[in-house]
Amino acid sequence: MRLNTTPKQDGFFMPSELAPHKCTYLLWPERPDNWRLGAKPAQMAFRAVVEAIAKHEPVVLGVNQSQYSHVLGMNMENVSIVEISNNDSWIRDTGATMVVNGNGEMRAVDWGFNGYGGMVNGIYFPWDLDDMIAAKMAAIENVDRYRTDDFVLEGGSIHSDGEGTLLVTEETLLDEGRNPDMTKEEIEAKLIEYTGVEKVLWIPFGVYKDEDTNGHVDNICQFVAPGKVVLAWEDNPDDPQHERSVKDLEYLENVTDARGRKLEIVKIHVPNPITITAEEAFWIDTVEGTFPRNEGDRLPASYINYYNCNGAIILPVFDDPHDEEAIATLQSLFPDRVIEPIYAREILLGGGNIHCITQQVPKV
Amino acid sequence: MRLNTTPKQDGFFMPSELAPHKCTYLLWPERPDNWRLGAKPAQMAFRAVVEAIAKHEPVVLGVNQSQYSHVLGMNMENVSIVEISNNDSWIRDTGATMVVNGNGEMRAVDWGFNGYGGMVNGIYFPWDLDDMIAAKMAAIENVDRYRTDDFVLEGGSIHSDGEGTLLVTEETLLDEGRNPDMTKEEIEAKLIEYTGVEKVLWIPFGVYKDEDTNGHVDNICQFVAPGKVVLAWEDNPDDPQHERSVKDLEYLENVTDARGRKLEIVKIHVPNPITITAEEAFWIDTVEGTFPRNEGDRLPASYINYYNCNGAIILPVFDDPHDEEAIATLQSLFPDRVIEPIYAREILLGGGNIHCITQQVPKV
Repeated sequence: MRLNTTPKQDGFFMPSELAPHKCTYLLWPERPDNWRLGAKPAQMAFRAVVEAIAKHEPVVLGVNQSQYSHVLGMNMENVSIVEISNNDSWIRDTGATMVVNGNGEMRAVDWGFNGYGGMVNGIYFPWDLDDMIAAKMAAIENVDRYRTDDFVLEGGSIHSDGEGTLLVTEETLLDEGRNPDMTKEEIEAKLIEYTGVEKVLWIPFGVYKDEDTNGHVDNICQFVAPGKVVLAWEDNPDDPQHERSVKDLEYLENVTDARGRKLEIVKIHVPNPITITAEEAFWIDTVEGTFPRNEGDRLPASYINYYNCNGAIILPVFDDPHDEEAIATLQSLFPDRVIEPIYAREILLGGGNIHCITQQVPKV
Repeated sequence: MRLNTTPKQDGFFMPSELAPHKCTYLLWPERPDNWRLGAKPAQMAFRAVVEAIAKHEPVVLGVNQSQYSHVLGMNMENVSIVEISNNDSWIRDTGATMVVNGNGEMRAVDWGFNGYGGMVNGIYFPWDLDDMIAAKMAAIENVDRYRTDDFVLEGGSIHSDGEGTLLVTEETLLDEGRNPDMTKEEIEAKLIEYTGVEKVLWIPFGVYKDEDTNGHVDNICQFVAPGKVVLAWEDNPDDPQHERSVKDLEYLENVTDARGRKLEIVKIHVPNPITITAEEAFWIDTVEGTFPRNEGDRLPASYINYYNCNGAIILPVFDDPHDEEAIATLQSLFPDRVIEPIYAREILLGGGNIHCITQQVPKV
């Protein structure tokens, strides 16, 4: 059922991704104008992510009808294959944001979605199927649904600590392609109303060249505990990422969260610059209206785009000298979680990474 | 997960439809070559069925993407709208037959489906989407799945009493379009293996002119309790239904069930002959390869095609003098269930009735 109240009114809030999950949703990549070689290499990488998560919790994998039989035939353990028509596979951004209350109840928030900027700076057209994914997830999970017809948001542009604080970037939330007629204060009020938090922290920047998403927070910073975050970092002052990370650090050092805590900040260095090769670009269908991916384009690679599932962290790695440090840092932050590194270049080539392709359903 | 054993081997069996349900699945009708006026009148009738069931137990309504937003917007209480691509809406025949064991576990049987007779006498082409519906239902219910690649069966051609006896018609099960290379004994062995019963009762005939299904049992006879059935009856010896009902009665009077019981048989008279009007036939798209529905064709109308949901019976009625008797008979057989009569001519025009468009998931 669609509800006409808000989560805040009804006593619901967005839990931390670190809280226990019932399951994880993903979508199967397919569109050949974004994923090279008919998405086959990306599908192999997605499958690795699915199987890594399925070792730790159930996975629900949504696929277009065209790929249903193929994916079903993989007979993957702990993975349900459901039909969810989609324009692309970023369920972090298009799926439901589940909210919970203190009585063990769950509901879905179904944000308006416009392909990362609509007719202003969206990255594909149309996005009609993607805008229905949250409703379909709510239906499969059999939960009631809040819908924001008048407010556009992608799930990858918010992080919740589960204790009243939401983390966002100004770059994305104030982008002219989302909610151009709303002030920052109005946007903040919507976020509070629909995630049930008390305070929003506005980091200025996302990762350099994260142009698809206009700098989603889930590539630059995430909570590792209430009051504690990891931040994508670049030492080299000549790299454009450096100044962005510095500005974000300054912001984070000078705020307190909803509980009045100063934040502890752990830096995780980004990999060396990664660019699209000629061969990679060649096998992407050129389509007018789809965000182009050309030879030499720098990719927004970051370790921060990892996913927290039950008992594990699914971490993108890049065959880069910084991989080991990222693994070691996260292992020290999460001694009780298994770190599952997955070579994720094929996902990055499509414009996002492991966090962008996952969406948790909390356990209530 | 797809399993390579059988329900019988694993200790699973098909419960009675009268046992408690978790929910009921339906599919939304759409194809204009079977349903007049773009399926709009049929959709109104299906909606009445959905809402009648939803008063008594949760409904999961599968729709093609093309109708998703429309149906979601109805915001029906106790109804989840999920995407299930389909060729037509007979989920009794295409959905999973759920089987259970004594430990509260459930699994799905995913029968081969070939559009009611394949290239021999199937009623539409292709049927590829319909053959995937049982797998999708199993995925949404998150249960493992048995699949019979080498055996074709529609769910409407079997009834289980939940105590070891299965009811079928020879007309359908021995039809040359289903399993032409199997003997009756081989077919019976498959039925026993996959429904977990001990004995199959072979009624000779279905309802007169039930040509789409070649005489499914669910239009002629069903269990009202173990050892007790209702049978579609026609008094008039000049009506072709009379001889069919007499032959079936003779068979039923002379068999015992798996527990050795003689059957008690309650007759329910069919409505007066119903034929397709010129206006009804006019608004159906003519398509080569789809079973034609022409002016004057007699329809296989029967009250037996009712559905047992939790605490209720959803009964097709036809604005016919026999309606009241059918209601009264069923109410006397089920004093604790609400009888929900629904005017079902629009469903009948498509070739089936309320039982054909429903599929239960048992409560375990």
